[in-house]
Amino acid sequence: MNLRKRGSLRACLALAILFGGASNAVAQPSKADPLPSWNDGAPKKAIIGFVTHVTTPGGPAFVPQAERIAAFDNDGTLWSEQPFYFQLAFALDRIKALAAKHPEWKNEQPFKAVLEGDHKALLAGGEPAIAKLMAASHTGMTTEEFEEIVKSWVASARHPRFKRPYTDLVYRPMLELLAYLRANGFKTFIVSGGGVDFMRAWVEKAYGIPREQVVGSTVKLKFELRDGKPVLLRLPEIDFVDDKAGKPVGIQKFIGRRPIFAAGNSDGDLEMLQWTTAGTGLRFGMIVRHTDAAREWAYDRESHIGRLDKALDDAGPRGWLVVDMKESWKVIYPFEK
Amino acid sequence: MNLRKRGSLRACLALAILFGGASNAVAQPSKADPLPSWNDGAPKKAIIGFVTHVTTPGGPAFVPQAERIAAFDNDGTLWSEQPFYFQLAFALDRIKALAAKHPEWKNEQPFKAVLEGDHKALLAGGEPAIAKLMAASHTGMTTEEFEEIVKSWVASARHPRFKRPYTDLVYRPMLELLAYLRANGFKTFIVSGGGVDFMRAWVEKAYGIPREQVVGSTVKLKFELRDGKPVLLRLPEIDFVDDKAGKPVGIQKFIGRRPIFAAGNSDGDLEMLQWTTAGTGLRFGMIVRHTDAAREWAYDRESHIGRLDKALDDAGPRGWLVVDMKESWKVIYPFEK
Repeated sequence: MNLRKRGSLRACLALAILFGGASNAVAQPSKADPLPSWNDGAPKKAIIGFVTHVTTPGGPAFVPQAERIAAFDNDGTLWSEQPFYFQLAFALDRIKALAAKHPEWKNEQPFKAVLEGDHKALLAGGEPAIAKLMAASHTGMTTEEFEEIVKSWVASARHPRFKRPYTDLVYRPMLELLAYLRANGFKTFIVSGGGVDFMRAWVEKAYGIPREQVVGSTVKLKFELRDGKPVLLRLPEIDFVDDKAGKPVGIQKFIGRRPIFAAGNSDGDLEMLQWTTAGTGLRFGMIVRHTDAAREWAYDRESHIGRLDKALDDAGPRGWLVVDMKESWKVIYPFEK
Repeated sequence: MNLRKRGSLRACLALAILFGGASNAVAQPSKADPLPSWNDGAPKKAIIGFVTHVTTPGGPAFVPQAERIAAFDNDGTLWSEQPFYFQLAFALDRIKALAAKHPEWKNEQPFKAVLEGDHKALLAGGEPAIAKLMAASHTGMTTEEFEEIVKSWVASARHPRFKRPYTDLVYRPMLELLAYLRANGFKTFIVSGGGVDFMRAWVEKAYGIPREQVVGSTVKLKFELRDGKPVLLRLPEIDFVDDKAGKPVGIQKFIGRRPIFAAGNSDGDLEMLQWTTAGTGLRFGMIVRHTDAAREWAYDRESHIGRLDKALDDAGPRGWLVVDMKESWKVIYPFEK
């Protein structure tokens, strides 16, 4: 944690108090400083200015509470996404766990590649290979069974670099931002390309976002009665992809109200940012830029994961805030001391 | 309004106060009687008993607030649906409004039938005819344009029997039930076969249910930039039908949490009721039965609209409450004096 540049005794105390607990839950934001993990500077000022404006009754930019919808991308915006999307890590672990029941996978791609840890062969399979892995790991069970599988993985899996549960790799400054918005009457939603039911298994605890406020990609479900007991089966068929131009569509389908605040980190968020900030009245678009290879990762225009290229070009002309992680964040993860 | 049977001065006073305003909004429910439009009796006792049990901290049936999800069908459960679904009335009115721009409709079914008021010819066209009418009236515009069209219709259209806006035909006892549940920490959702964006244009005002808590049928949407301005186009293609076995699927997709309370009125709600009440812990399933031809309508097993047959058979064995409108409701509509 880098407190040297702009640190102060007061900030240290505030952080010590905030980070004292083991949970990711953020206490009610302090009125003195609702974003203590953010360095003072233009980004923090812009966020607080926006929230102040839209919540000032009688002010020219006031927004009624019911319309204070904030949409957050998840991968790379609320938690890390390197060396590859955590949901893919779940899929690979799941394939390994299921291998004993599928002896044929030893000779069948892309399963063979996963079981042998042959990332090159895996990548060579392209999108069809990924689709096969996702179907084998994410479908063919009931929604309740899937939830238990994800919860069990979240509890036991460890990130290769940090040797910690994946849900430890959420961004402390973003937790503060979520809590700050909620304290100001916002409803915070996740709008992610990730699987909606994968996320719902853990987002409540990690972000304080209720599962009914998660918009994501879905597979087809089938209702059936098993001995009179109703179940919902997860079918190996994509229902909806909540990414790129799918994000405004997902927002309309699931929320039905255009957000006044949106945060993303990649070109997958471009259309969501366009849709959000093109609404009437004061709007806020924000891009988290990964610039900190030491504490997190540094990547943008050339990255295969979370590529940030067109959205970065649009940020200037459209007035979106670009948050440079290295510059703006005193802390990245809640576990940093 | 029939107050004679079990009326009392106190009930009259309470109703006079509640019905004093012109709006459908229900005030905070009275602690003395949270459901003043419900006759005393088993249904009212069952509802209050359930709510008391799940909200009693430390009690055996206590449910944390985050899990208090209540799902309500709309047509026939929260507002009337006769002589045919109000959304179909909207579609027919819309066809008439658009006819001047479509001279070819004079000779083309099912439009010809609509313009000539020939219901027999219209019915002869079956589902393909309805689908054509829905596409012509509900798609081909942006989501914002559609919202304005619906709002304008809601403001000007009048129900053929009551000569009042359709949104006047909401059930007073159900408004009280919604308010009572919310006052007890429930999140109230609509889960309807109706079009989600049709409902979102007016449910907030009519029921106090925010638009992000509406689950319904959807058409495909397409995001595009028009001169740099993003829009969502409504395409003439069904995306999802939130009816029958689609209701539990819609609940899982949009809410991601199984309700503990569900109310419906027809076989279209059967699977939602099954799904809701098969969960662990105390659950509540409720069916509104249309038994009052004088004040509303009377129909069930033989009706083409809102047929209630299988769900009525299931109600006994599965322990669902069947609410007889005529017996249980002192008032049907808020405008009754």
